[in-house]
Amino acid sequence: MNNLIAIDIGGTHFRVGLFDEQGRRLLVSEGVTDRVGGREWMLGEIGRRFRSLKESSDYPIRACGVSFGGPVDFAAQKATSLSASGWKDFALSAWVRENLEVPCRLDNDANAGAMGEFHFGAGRGTQSMFYITISTGIGGGLVAAGKILRGKDSLAGEIGHLPMTDAGVICSCGGRGCLETLSSGSAIARTAQEWAERRPDAVTRLLEFRDGAGDNLTAKAVAQAAAEGDMPAGRIMRDAGRWLGRALLTVIRIVNPDKIVLGGGVAQAGKLLLDPIQEVIEELKSPTILATTEIVLAELGTYSPLYGAVAMALEVS
Amino acid sequence: MNNLIAIDIGGTHFRVGLFDEQGRRLLVSEGVTDRVGGREWMLGEIGRRFRSLKESSDYPIRACGVSFGGPVDFAAQKATSLSASGWKDFALSAWVRENLEVPCRLDNDANAGAMGEFHFGAGRGTQSMFYITISTGIGGGLVAAGKILRGKDSLAGEIGHLPMTDAGVICSCGGRGCLETLSSGSAIARTAQEWAERRPDAVTRLLEFRDGAGDNLTAKAVAQAAAEGDMPAGRIMRDAGRWLGRALLTVIRIVNPDKIVLGGGVAQAGKLLLDPIQEVIEELKSPTILATTEIVLAELGTYSPLYGAVAMALEVS
Repeated sequence: MNNLIAIDIGGTHFRVGLFDEQGRRLLVSEGVTDRVGGREWMLGEIGRRFRSLKESSDYPIRACGVSFGGPVDFAAQKATSLSASGWKDFALSAWVRENLEVPCRLDNDANAGAMGEFHFGAGRGTQSMFYITISTGIGGGLVAAGKILRGKDSLAGEIGHLPMTDAGVICSCGGRGCLETLSSGSAIARTAQEWAERRPDAVTRLLEFRDGAGDNLTAKAVAQAAAEGDMPAGRIMRDAGRWLGRALLTVIRIVNPDKIVLGGGVAQAGKLLLDPIQEVIEELKSPTILATTEIVLAELGTYSPLYGAVAMALEVS
Repeated sequence: MNNLIAIDIGGTHFRVGLFDEQGRRLLVSEGVTDRVGGREWMLGEIGRRFRSLKESSDYPIRACGVSFGGPVDFAAQKATSLSASGWKDFALSAWVRENLEVPCRLDNDANAGAMGEFHFGAGRGTQSMFYITISTGIGGGLVAAGKILRGKDSLAGEIGHLPMTDAGVICSCGGRGCLETLSSGSAIARTAQEWAERRPDAVTRLLEFRDGAGDNLTAKAVAQAAAEGDMPAGRIMRDAGRWLGRALLTVIRIVNPDKIVLGGGVAQAGKLLLDPIQEVIEELKSPTILATTEIVLAELGTYSPLYGAVAMALEVS
């Protein structure tokens, strides 16, 4: 028997977990990401927690998988993030090998989430699967014949930047009307905030869901308000879900996967997104092209990328 | 040395070809499909031409591949067309095995075209490729890691039925605003015909490209008129190309293939479609998500599915 270490480095949280070779979680150590601390701080945390987990078991560590919450050059096994401090062109796999002395495989969190759900979650038993992570932004990963399909520029699965409408706002990517500007956590929060500023009288109930009186509305607050029956919040969630439905019908037409799995924090809203997704697909579907791709929630919740790191550790060793 | 037989059964033409094991064409026998004759007539023609080609060479026939211009149940190796006479649930591969006495593999023409270009045409040397066939209708096939990705319901690649606009006309599939209603040969011909009926004065030059004075305009006539500088025809081709560009950007975002290959009769228009495709992708692209997927014309022209049948014959034997 050997153990595996899985690492999930995200913009808000990070996790280092000890797993057995069947992918069962033995112990997970979780923390809040210190964005100011940047790379050096994060590597210190990871090293410390790695060693502590390693010492907690008599079994040796066979390999390590890392999910990184930003762009990754998979072939070079490097993080290539430009926005997060210190992560530009950083050979993260090599760092693990040299400092923690185990073989390592690295991928971005969207692909890791897809692998996690494919091997250990809602995608078990499928041949092909599309994973979409709806969080601050929107990403995706495509599994075909058991493997991540990366594409020429490692950009396969970039469903967050599907052009949806000419009338949309400018996206963080510089494009216009991307899905991410319509259905992401940021988009949901921004729309709610716009309502709050322009028509505060219409959203008095929604405003009660803020963390503090002076704070901005979050996607989580909107989802909670919608779940409790608040109409404007329900409308915002429904609009976000309908755009998701259009984008997912595109995935069904091009890839027709066995399953589409919805992960990421915003997907915790469950039915509030699934219902309008199904509604719009029902409206747009063809009576003769009857794709039976199922759309389901991630089984591993926000742990999908961490379990994907487990799958990567199993592959590399 | 052995030879292979490749068969391409289309709605307007059919072809039976003799190839060597390197996929080189030795002899192709081509005919016009008798739609009234239906399945029995077609099988008679195929059998006769197959035997004639077999006798034309001293080398034995090792295997046969068949491209069918309609829906195919690949797992069952059956044609499943509802519209073409006699082809519903017909075990075409088994018929070839029993009547022509060679192993056989069958697939639809979109997947066959993809395989043809992947092995012998514009897709050689790629890892992943999307083939779109623009003909009377629009179909597509997706090759990943050297294999056709079929999807759960054998509907992967169905780019003709991507929902593009709520304002569109009803498609043959029963959906609304599908790509096929905007960019197919039928759509191009229909738009030109509408102009001819509503504003004959504006399309006098275009009308000269009809086969006969009383005939309807075809997509080929529109492309010819556009190539010779006719403005309304150019506008119709440009609109068709711009919708194609939007759909192909979607393919790039979801699959990011090495290449997208444009085949089928309408793709013979070349630059008339490629220019507006590139134009709209340039307009919609993100400055930070720089996919380098190339968009090129099929190298095998209308022979892509026949060469795909060669690839299938090589696989099955």
